[in-house]
Amino acid sequence: MSTQTDTAFEAAVEATLGRDQTARGYTGSDAAGEQITPLGASLRAATDGTFAQVRRELRTTLAAGDFLRDPSLSVDEARAWTSNALQGIVDAGHGGAGFPTSVGGDGLVASSVVNFEMIALADLSLTVKVGVHFGLFGGAISNLGTEEQIQEFAPQVMNLQLPGCFAMTEVGHGSDVQSLETTLTYDADTDEIVVHSPTPSATKTYIGNAAADGRMAAVFGQLEVAGSDHGIHVVLVPLRDDSGAALPGVTIGDNGAKGGLDGVDNGTLAFDQVRVPRTMLLSRYGGVTAEGTYESPIENPNRRFFTMLGTLVRGRICVGGASAQAARKALSIATRYSLQRRQFEAPGREEEVLLLDYLAHQRKLLPAIATAYALAFAQNELVDTLESVQSKPVGERDQTAQRELETRAAGLKAVSTRFANDVIQVCREACGGAGYMAENGLTELRRDADVFATFEGDNTVLLQLLAKGLLTNYKEMWGDLDMLGMVQAAARTFTGTVIERTAARPAIERIMATAQRRPDAETVLERAWHVTMFEEREQHVLDSLAQRLRTAGKDESRAFEAFNATQDHLLLAARTHMDRVILEAFIAGIDACEDEETAAVLNKLCDLYVLENLAADRGWFQEHGRMSTARAKAIVPALNQLCQELRPLALPLVEGMGVPVQLLQSAMLED
Amino acid sequence: MSTQTDTAFEAAVEATLGRDQTARGYTGSDAAGEQITPLGASLRAATDGTFAQVRRELRTTLAAGDFLRDPSLSVDEARAWTSNALQGIVDAGHGGAGFPTSVGGDGLVASSVVNFEMIALADLSLTVKVGVHFGLFGGAISNLGTEEQIQEFAPQVMNLQLPGCFAMTEVGHGSDVQSLETTLTYDADTDEIVVHSPTPSATKTYIGNAAADGRMAAVFGQLEVAGSDHGIHVVLVPLRDDSGAALPGVTIGDNGAKGGLDGVDNGTLAFDQVRVPRTMLLSRYGGVTAEGTYESPIENPNRRFFTMLGTLVRGRICVGGASAQAARKALSIATRYSLQRRQFEAPGREEEVLLLDYLAHQRKLLPAIATAYALAFAQNELVDTLESVQSKPVGERDQTAQRELETRAAGLKAVSTRFANDVIQVCREACGGAGYMAENGLTELRRDADVFATFEGDNTVLLQLLAKGLLTNYKEMWGDLDMLGMVQAAARTFTGTVIERTAARPAIERIMATAQRRPDAETVLERAWHVTMFEEREQHVLDSLAQRLRTAGKDESRAFEAFNATQDHLLLAARTHMDRVILEAFIAGIDACEDEETAAVLNKLCDLYVLENLAADRGWFQEHGRMSTARAKAIVPALNQLCQELRPLALPLVEGMGVPVQLLQSAMLED
Repeated sequence: MSTQTDTAFEAAVEATLGRDQTARGYTGSDAAGEQITPLGASLRAATDGTFAQVRRELRTTLAAGDFLRDPSLSVDEARAWTSNALQGIVDAGHGGAGFPTSVGGDGLVASSVVNFEMIALADLSLTVKVGVHFGLFGGAISNLGTEEQIQEFAPQVMNLQLPGCFAMTEVGHGSDVQSLETTLTYDADTDEIVVHSPTPSATKTYIGNAAADGRMAAVFGQLEVAGSDHGIHVVLVPLRDDSGAALPGVTIGDNGAKGGLDGVDNGTLAFDQVRVPRTMLLSRYGGVTAEGTYESPIENPNRRFFTMLGTLVRGRICVGGASAQAARKALSIATRYSLQRRQFEAPGREEEVLLLDYLAHQRKLLPAIATAYALAFAQNELVDTLESVQSKPVGERDQTAQRELETRAAGLKAVSTRFANDVIQVCREACGGAGYMAENGLTELRRDADVFATFEGDNTVLLQLLAKGLLTNYKEMWGDLDMLGMVQAAARTFTGTVIERTAARPAIERIMATAQRRPDAETVLERAWHVTMFEEREQHVLDSLAQRLRTAGKDESRAFEAFNATQDHLLLAARTHMDRVILEAFIAGIDACEDEETAAVLNKLCDLYVLENLAADRGWFQEHGRMSTARAKAIVPALNQLCQELRPLALPLVEGMGVPVQLLQSAMLED
Repeated sequence: MSTQTDTAFEAAVEATLGRDQTARGYTGSDAAGEQITPLGASLRAATDGTFAQVRRELRTTLAAGDFLRDPSLSVDEARAWTSNALQGIVDAGHGGAGFPTSVGGDGLVASSVVNFEMIALADLSLTVKVGVHFGLFGGAISNLGTEEQIQEFAPQVMNLQLPGCFAMTEVGHGSDVQSLETTLTYDADTDEIVVHSPTPSATKTYIGNAAADGRMAAVFGQLEVAGSDHGIHVVLVPLRDDSGAALPGVTIGDNGAKGGLDGVDNGTLAFDQVRVPRTMLLSRYGGVTAEGTYESPIENPNRRFFTMLGTLVRGRICVGGASAQAARKALSIATRYSLQRRQFEAPGREEEVLLLDYLAHQRKLLPAIATAYALAFAQNELVDTLESVQSKPVGERDQTAQRELETRAAGLKAVSTRFANDVIQVCREACGGAGYMAENGLTELRRDADVFATFEGDNTVLLQLLAKGLLTNYKEMWGDLDMLGMVQAAARTFTGTVIERTAARPAIERIMATAQRRPDAETVLERAWHVTMFEEREQHVLDSLAQRLRTAGKDESRAFEAFNATQDHLLLAARTHMDRVILEAFIAGIDACEDEETAAVLNKLCDLYVLENLAADRGWFQEHGRMSTARAKAIVPALNQLCQELRPLALPLVEGMGVPVQLLQSAMLED
């Protein structure tokens, strides 16, 4: 870090310690009326990103309304509360987020993601209910439906007249969507689609909104027209009549008690020869003409399948983002608690010691806060990319950019949900017995965030998808874990990695250029060295993976064994790729920050993020001759030092994560 | 591994694969009537340890009765169910476990721990309720009471006539017991003890059995006699009358919804000048005579405090053991599911691939199973030590052995509860959406096991206690994080570590002797190398910690800073010590196993346990010149290889963890 940056960081510390709270020109309060420190406000502006205005509106809505669920509600009560709160979101004017302007939506793909993320700060059941109805059901209509279908159904989705489900997962197949068993058979005699569950394992399960509220479902199944199979398509199927009773041929079950998300009515759906008009088939990418023949703008069935699924990428971006927000809420609660809770006397201290003054406590919370910032910048970049890729008409979209978006969404979802699950637990434990009381907010967050690791794609499967995208440079169509294809693609196309830098390219090039002028082999705080470490790790892991697959992939009959023998290597490739992408997003976020003191604080956080990552992986770096033992040994002391430096800024760092105090919902903080 | 061992391992695989299931002389069924493979039966015998008979009896009781709670019960229903189930434990004849024979107990300290562990396989709320009433309340009476007091109260505890609480933790102080605020003041005029909560933060909280069922509490507070403070003592205080109403001066609150353990009625207790007869003060280590003067067999108040607390060590051993059992149950569920659930077609395979055939899935579950075995052996050794140390009359106990027992109990509790929290989550995710459904058993395990990381001592605090024990060779009296004392003790007494080998000494010496005759620098599977790595790591970490404290500890006014600057180092010392202790217990467990094939399987599991540990720490080993890069690089491939070798044995490995199928309580396994 340069001397100039050091001075700016010291100024930030001074200001935060109260000597100069007002002189820096920030308002010191958020839109929702929360009083925060000036540094907290400017950090919050940095993490709010492009769609800061949408975030502020949601904060205002959520802080003003009844959007915090009492964790002691029973499942039935929680479901009723969540349905009401969903109506509250519509009443507050957020129902049109993400829908086309042609039906009165705001026309911003990104705004529905930002909505989803922000609602996660209030209640994750509500978030999921919003996501199922508007994002998945509504998203299926607006992404897979024809203009006519959008005009017919989207308005009823936006105003909540037609509560909907997204019926993809079956008992037999979750991760493997191409193997779904539900059949959608076109009957030319009646011009209808017959929806049928041929086996018990074809039953749709874990379907949100199905057990109680849903009136219609977007049902995934294998389309058959005149005896020919056209693969996975989606049809709208009414589920219940006006009284709420299941329609003939539809069997609805209740998944019952879950590990969390008590407010979401997950259920099962089975169809016994249920008939719907042909026009209920969402037909943008393939449908049946009035003459009864199948037509699609995309000839290759595999390509059609992945194009259809690709339009639904928003769901994964939502889930990753909401997880990261849940982690930020947990970190906000635990860190604020650590700034008020004291335990144990210490020699030379009048009061007992604040929890956050213990090094071990700092090590639990501060690097996690740094990671939360890193993920915030990465998520914002992903949302910006989503907006720029998907705001174009489908025909004009850059296919490579779309695939890169999909793989990155998969990767960030896996990383963010892993982080959330881990860090919420750390926060729970860091608050001791109080952390285990439901009224203090952490255990319910933990329960609700848990399944984000699974829905919208199991994390292990998602990381494999990402690895495959990397191996093929996003050039090949890819499937939900097509093992033979992955091995062959690696054997065929991979001729050495060229790591494509992300949006951070200019900032990173400046950093690398500076470094070349003053190399320093001793410090572990040189950003250019960080970038080099992350890039070289990714490149080496990917190169050696491709080499292994190329050697093994020549024998087609052994493709599974070849894939399986390298599965841990594949996952490592995906993770190291995401580490680099996230670091670059952090660097770009700092670069975009115009206030010098705020940037200095972000820089310090970025150091902490990097060192935590390098500390965990320093075995690999030494094994591969990328890090001297002296430097490896210097990492943990530097981590401790950074924690100590950032300790005085704990409150503004927490404020900067953007969780308004009105949404903390933690009784122990009110003592 | 020797050629002989290799052959035995191959024989075990062959037998398990069905070619020779009956020829090996095992019964192939457990006492409770569960049919298991011969190898599963012999592995179970190995993990059952010394108190196998008690374990079998509990398995039979639990499998036959109503001890599995429906996870969809409301909190009130769950509490009622748990109270009934507690009566069921008494009715089945287990109420006397751990009580002296003089009052009709079984006279085995260990049996109460084994009871607690085994009940954890059925329901953790019930376990905790058993632990609170029999272990903590009953344990306070039998460990801190006079013979007269034991005669008066223990029988009513054993038959559940007098449901009891253990009222230690206060709102203001949990980890720091010596700073509790509740006062116990002797009033000579009336010959009574006045129990009082002087401030809101003196309110007892999180007290199990308090909110609904408890009739009496063992209350911790500061004893004052004739104006002199004698430190923490424990007094029995009646809480409720026969109708269940709170007695005058006693205010009882309900902690309400928690992150789990729905069946346990945790509550708050505040006392307003509550008077009880002098004879209610548990007086084995200090009491008030009929003449109104304080008397204690232990003069030094600090030593008295830690002696009293030390007698309660059983609670920590229970909590660690029960956590490990919860982890075994989760691993049993997830592994069995992975042997029936298929997902994704693969080239060259007729059926879709079983989850456990994926390397990534093996890497999630098999090393965790290996660790579960390691912890089982370590726990059994600890329980044996408890029995041998505490079965002696107090005056004859070896004080160093008692302190070593306490520190090891602290360390194993921290390690086991960390493992349980982590691995149950891994298991939940490994079962995908099904894992999130309450009826499949994993989410409730996760919720219930969570707080085991906190109660009976926060894990971070416990690891520090252990580190202090190591620094002082258990010779100095130690406190609940006495920072100045720790730093000074290190400065004064620490003159280089001598790692004392545990019960495994003879086996390890044989291993080391063999190794000297055939050194092999290439393999990562040499047990002697494993032992060397674990020992050297512990020794180096401890030596360097002592050095740092010695240097820093000279300035008393900087004692907190000296302690705090090394806090991560302290925690590392504790962890590396436990790693070595656990490895030695594993080696001793293998050594005690008389069946050659079973021992060969255990040896393979031990390799897996060690390599998982070394893989995570290989950065440290390289930095400190203890491991070549070649060897470090060989670890992960060897891990993968071991997983592949153990994969065919997955079912017997699971059976060997000792969770009977009747207690799995997982709907998805019954499909």
